[in-house]
Amino acid sequence: MVTTHHGWAPNAAPMGIIRKQDTILIRLFKGSRTYQNILAENFLVANVTNDPVAFVRYTFSDIQPDDIETISSPWREFPVLKKAQSWVAFECINTKITPEALVAELKPLRGHVNSFYPKAPNRGLNAILEATIHATRYKMNGEEKYLKLIDFYEDIINKCGGEREKEALMLLRSYL
Amino acid sequence: MVTTHHGWAPNAAPMGIIRKQDTILIRLFKGSRTYQNILAENFLVANVTNDPVAFVRYTFSDIQPDDIETISSPWREFPVLKKAQSWVAFECINTKITPEALVAELKPLRGHVNSFYPKAPNRGLNAILEATIHATRYKMNGEEKYLKLIDFYEDIINKCGGEREKEALMLLRSYL
Repeated sequence: MVTTHHGWAPNAAPMGIIRKQDTILIRLFKGSRTYQNILAENFLVANVTNDPVAFVRYTFSDIQPDDIETISSPWREFPVLKKAQSWVAFECINTKITPEALVAELKPLRGHVNSFYPKAPNRGLNAILEATIHATRYKMNGEEKYLKLIDFYEDIINKCGGEREKEALMLLRSYL
Repeated sequence: MVTTHHGWAPNAAPMGIIRKQDTILIRLFKGSRTYQNILAENFLVANVTNDPVAFVRYTFSDIQPDDIETISSPWREFPVLKKAQSWVAFECINTKITPEALVAELKPLRGHVNSFYPKAPNRGLNAILEATIHATRYKMNGEEKYLKLIDFYEDIINKCGGEREKEALMLLRSYL
């Protein structure tokens, strides 16, 4: 989960961080809050979380103040997810902007670990992520096929997910 | 990844462990090596790993001796995955056997942590797991639809996976 800010206004959104050998990158399509904030501040925080509800919520909703902790450093204040297992704050450098997207290299500035616990892959959690992605596509263009894909993943969530995944599925359905 | 043994013969296979509040369970369909070993020994080890190649390999192949470490305890010797981030050894109790499957409760006996590192969900790794599951179904009944599902996940692996996921995909294709 990526947290960003613009001035005092924080944001959170699920985003992929790309690692190619020793280079860390982010690629963002134009138009999102995350895109605007990174353009303005050249800064982001990668929060490690495995909470399916957070993935669904921050795909569709603004950040809730209770979910955020503000970290103060000599050079700026920035938001992180309170419940993140760990986070790394990055400066965005060598940012390249195309008509559709932005690609930035990420230079680690500071990291923090709240808790470590072993986490095996969980098909239910994975299915929540995929269903959420199809939900954003459905909301963009209303194509029926995305609803079918959400149904497909719902079967996996019901079979392999725990209570938190089922809660996330209900939340996802409420946004559709 | 679940490692089991029967006498001196070890086995590894990807299996889901179910947690319902404070009860830990495993459900296994009849016929697999894991099923037979658990029936014989009432014992299994849950190994936490995020290695996509291991998931593919141990869905289709026997364990490689180099991948295994043998743990000695006063009551038995048992195999664990050398590269597991952590593992927990369980006794299988209250085992119920139906005509199709076995359900056992898992009682933790001993655990070990090799390494902890923060691990955010990765869509490429998730897609490897799903593609592998569809590959086993394809090998069971040859239905075309499973090949299409593997193609569907291949797109996600190519887009979101790292080198290890792409290696796992090539290995998966070699088993088909």
